[in-house]
Amino acid sequence: MAPGNAIDARLARALFAPRAVALVGASGDATKNTARPQRYLRKHGYGGRIFPVNPSRKEIFSEPAFASVRDIPETVDHAFIMIAEVEQALEDCAARGVPVASIYSDGFADAGAKGAERQARLVERARALGVRLLGPNSMGVIDIPGRVALTVNAVLEMDALPAGGTSLISHSVGNEADLGVGELVELLADDADTRVILLFLETVRDAARLASAARRAHAAGKPVVAYKLGRSAAGEALARSHTGALAGSDRALDAYFRDCGIVRVDMLETLLEIAPLVLDRKPRDLKRGPRVAVVTTTGGGAATVVDRLGLLGIETVSPDGKSPIVDLTMAATPEKYRKVLEELLAWDGCDAVLAAVGSSAQFHPEFAVEPILGAKRTDKPLSAFFTPHAERSLALLAARGIAGFRTPEACADAFAAYFAWRAPRERPSLSPVKTETDPFQLLKSLGIPMVEQQVARAPDFAHSVPYPVAVKVLGVEHKTEVGGVFLNVDEKSFLPRVGEMKMDTILVQRMVQGLAEAIVGYRVDPVVGPLVLVGAGGTLAEIYQDVALALAPVSEDEAMAMIERVKGFSVLRGYRNLPRGDVEALAKAVAAFSRLCSLASIKEAEINPLIVGADGVVAVDVLVVARE
Amino acid sequence: MAPGNAIDARLARALFAPRAVALVGASGDATKNTARPQRYLRKHGYGGRIFPVNPSRKEIFSEPAFASVRDIPETVDHAFIMIAEVEQALEDCAARGVPVASIYSDGFADAGAKGAERQARLVERARALGVRLLGPNSMGVIDIPGRVALTVNAVLEMDALPAGGTSLISHSVGNEADLGVGELVELLADDADTRVILLFLETVRDAARLASAARRAHAAGKPVVAYKLGRSAAGEALARSHTGALAGSDRALDAYFRDCGIVRVDMLETLLEIAPLVLDRKPRDLKRGPRVAVVTTTGGGAATVVDRLGLLGIETVSPDGKSPIVDLTMAATPEKYRKVLEELLAWDGCDAVLAAVGSSAQFHPEFAVEPILGAKRTDKPLSAFFTPHAERSLALLAARGIAGFRTPEACADAFAAYFAWRAPRERPSLSPVKTETDPFQLLKSLGIPMVEQQVARAPDFAHSVPYPVAVKVLGVEHKTEVGGVFLNVDEKSFLPRVGEMKMDTILVQRMVQGLAEAIVGYRVDPVVGPLVLVGAGGTLAEIYQDVALALAPVSEDEAMAMIERVKGFSVLRGYRNLPRGDVEALAKAVAAFSRLCSLASIKEAEINPLIVGADGVVAVDVLVVARE
Repeated sequence: MAPGNAIDARLARALFAPRAVALVGASGDATKNTARPQRYLRKHGYGGRIFPVNPSRKEIFSEPAFASVRDIPETVDHAFIMIAEVEQALEDCAARGVPVASIYSDGFADAGAKGAERQARLVERARALGVRLLGPNSMGVIDIPGRVALTVNAVLEMDALPAGGTSLISHSVGNEADLGVGELVELLADDADTRVILLFLETVRDAARLASAARRAHAAGKPVVAYKLGRSAAGEALARSHTGALAGSDRALDAYFRDCGIVRVDMLETLLEIAPLVLDRKPRDLKRGPRVAVVTTTGGGAATVVDRLGLLGIETVSPDGKSPIVDLTMAATPEKYRKVLEELLAWDGCDAVLAAVGSSAQFHPEFAVEPILGAKRTDKPLSAFFTPHAERSLALLAARGIAGFRTPEACADAFAAYFAWRAPRERPSLSPVKTETDPFQLLKSLGIPMVEQQVARAPDFAHSVPYPVAVKVLGVEHKTEVGGVFLNVDEKSFLPRVGEMKMDTILVQRMVQGLAEAIVGYRVDPVVGPLVLVGAGGTLAEIYQDVALALAPVSEDEAMAMIERVKGFSVLRGYRNLPRGDVEALAKAVAAFSRLCSLASIKEAEINPLIVGADGVVAVDVLVVARE
Repeated sequence: MAPGNAIDARLARALFAPRAVALVGASGDATKNTARPQRYLRKHGYGGRIFPVNPSRKEIFSEPAFASVRDIPETVDHAFIMIAEVEQALEDCAARGVPVASIYSDGFADAGAKGAERQARLVERARALGVRLLGPNSMGVIDIPGRVALTVNAVLEMDALPAGGTSLISHSVGNEADLGVGELVELLADDADTRVILLFLETVRDAARLASAARRAHAAGKPVVAYKLGRSAAGEALARSHTGALAGSDRALDAYFRDCGIVRVDMLETLLEIAPLVLDRKPRDLKRGPRVAVVTTTGGGAATVVDRLGLLGIETVSPDGKSPIVDLTMAATPEKYRKVLEELLAWDGCDAVLAAVGSSAQFHPEFAVEPILGAKRTDKPLSAFFTPHAERSLALLAARGIAGFRTPEACADAFAAYFAWRAPRERPSLSPVKTETDPFQLLKSLGIPMVEQQVARAPDFAHSVPYPVAVKVLGVEHKTEVGGVFLNVDEKSFLPRVGEMKMDTILVQRMVQGLAEAIVGYRVDPVVGPLVLVGAGGTLAEIYQDVALALAPVSEDEAMAMIERVKGFSVLRGYRNLPRGDVEALAKAVAAFSRLCSLASIKEAEINPLIVGADGVVAVDVLVVARE
């Protein structure tokens, strides 16, 4: 471990590289989970001291056992608590100055309201005592360079630990009562042995801290990659029940990951395979669709990944411009292969190179695998897809720091994640927004044009809005659905229509014809905070989920990038020769609306519709929900 | 092989279970591809006779070589031709009565127009001689039960052939100049050793024959599963260049697979893992969303697959109704696990059971793997997902005919494919359609209501259509975009508007207000034939690809099922309390339009828009393109 500052360094050492560990509740029964940490530490060659703690035994697996942490004669860096009496064990740890305790025991926030209260008390006491906690409900810690297998996770039954500078933080960190994913990422960002940080997340508990940790990791040149569950309703419910944490919307989290420079992968396998693709690389904003050159010794095998890349919007290119791949099937010699690889890596027509290798990867590595291993590492990523599986050749690639994939889907997913990766975003500076209780005044203060309108009152409902007009009831949501709206009303029909509404006051608006309708929204997500969204109007945004989200505030350029992600706005961009809409004005409105995040009083707001014309935009309706 | 009829049985035997093979062009140089078949046949224990043919050698790898097939002293069932002089080798085969030749050599349809001509001549000659051909450009044949490794595919370097009753037909069958995928599926449908048929397809060349073969396989209780490339534009281009075949639209092929009862998988890995899930099972039409019960010893591991199932629209359920899974993490004993499995398999609240097993699958199979292996096979599928990988336990599952998955994505994909599987569709009977040259008359003869309209002529443009009307130029496509349409024209504005159009004849239509617009299309796909489509109108169908396709003709019930797949029609189904539209009338129109397939003269036709009201539908514009 490399020190960040003195306290962090001590914490990091105790967590990841303890010189002595106490196993509180270690079992002498080899079939029990609680017997595992001792066995795994020994099996994988842990070099420090191990102190089993169990009052009912003198010895466990031929090592002396202690009745309490208090009885251990030496300094202990890290205690692993596996008994129900967690509180007592914590006191014992504090009495001996143990800086970190990992808690396997459950029955805390994972177990309803009572458990949550118990957890709060435990954390409070730990803070008072100066002991940091990992868990409760944690599987423990594995540090590969230090050979620390301080865990109950049976995956450690494996014969040998893998190699590498990749650190993984998983949901196995448990309830995050004290040490959370954010702080762990901070520690890893400062850790000299860590070069890539992988996150397996069921939920995000402290978005602000993880965001700042991800920025710190980025500054240290360490990519952070996340695989996050809870994308479907069932997954979200399960993550909530499993972790006791707020779920937040997955689309909001997606915007959040992009915002803080975290690479997000779709498939679990990708999380485990992508590290070499991002290792020592920086995110690039290509400003156009990414292009991958594919060289292969298996036309059919390469086709599986080319097809998948295409589905994810990644173009495959070759220097001859004819075929989407360079196919050396039946013509491969190691020399030829080496030459093609060199050419593609030097060719400025592609942004990455993929070598798709058939069964020769397994049985004739000299054909293609050796040229790949021998290729010079450049800024342009070179990755490999072996079909069928070729585990030994994949291990050779891993040792050389080259990403190797087992399936076309994970391979394409990794490229998509790599190309979607952006540097952490710098938030635009905010000019203050005046708090207004009236929604229309609020829009005005944000500089978003509002349709010409007046409130008209009985008995004569006089107004000066030019006809034709729209007539609406006041103060009702979803007006159209309750029959509270008449559109395109001319002077002759005005009073009869108003009569039908049976209201004393109504809203009269000028009818505006635009090229398209947009919806612009703002809300405070419980997990990631203020968000702005823009989508195609009418029912499109909802039926097709055709919206783009970003963390608020956004600049006009960023708003423009959001607009480009909305499919329905293709009608504003010259689709089928339709007249072009004023997307700049739309972007301006989105950026302005995102500034609502400076007003703590607002929880949600929505302009629906915002009419986009050939020259400017105009809001027709706006709704603001205050925070309770 | 089991005989279908005498000729098929002879062909099947020669193809998959030859008693003697000739290797034409066998090399004595072990590094050459052409040396492989001899080596692989020996290595994998082929029991028949092997005759290497090579005029320049007396002996190849210690087996006597022959100058020509003509010189072989015994009956040969199958020749594998690996030389450039394919035509001569064919004559030699015919002279000795060899019934089947597989051709590895390329330079035929895979090599441009000249190659295609050469292929046509070769096939013609082979037919005259009575020799059936596999290829050209084929990797050969592997038959596992017969231990026939008659192939150049280096995957055969594997130590031992896998076991099982699964047959795979891949794009390695080559150009399909003579024997095609369809005929091979027919042979496998009749083959006693084959229980599941897997297809790896880059293209479909003879859709009609494959469709009838798939029906034959279905009747024989043998599921057919397809993985097909060419879903993306790049994949389509590659498949075309790689196979020289027409690509056809992927959505059309998707409709085709569904139509003929072929299970389609999305991921390559799924193709290789799904067989036990469909083996001996029939497609089920649940008439509601499918539900899977998940039992697990790894909450986090199960969450990965629950989340993915949710993304694919598959609900996860548990008998307690609270959590979406039955989580036995930390509480699993083999007895408990066995009991839960039994309960779930008997529970009528779920349609399938998934066991998600953590690292115990690798190291403690007694916990969960043995109960799974011991579970009684029922109509309800039981599958397993092991995370992390546990190859030995997967092999045990395979031997017991239980599907086992390595990744949450392939597991969820397999369930989605299984639940989407339908029996081959019986086409509705067709009443004849009268050929009409006028599109509006054609609609009339199909019984699809057309909006009230008249052609009006200069100088007075008299008509009797009630106002307000739409005024349109005649005979121009995309009228709206060229400014050839005026909507909502009242009597006062009629002549001024017509004047602006500067036309002698115009179309006057009654303005109709509906609840939504639909597009109904018909076209003859080059690969799968006549198709009908229905989509949300306006620009939605195109921008969001929000259309449903089916092979024509369709019944009204089938048309209704198509309409349910179109998201945009949610506005007709009571979305947000909007008034309901007459989807029955829409279904009737779609079914009627699909009857165009009885008119060979029509290549394409489209009603756009078809206005859907609360009571009935009405076509506003229709376009018909005749076949050239």
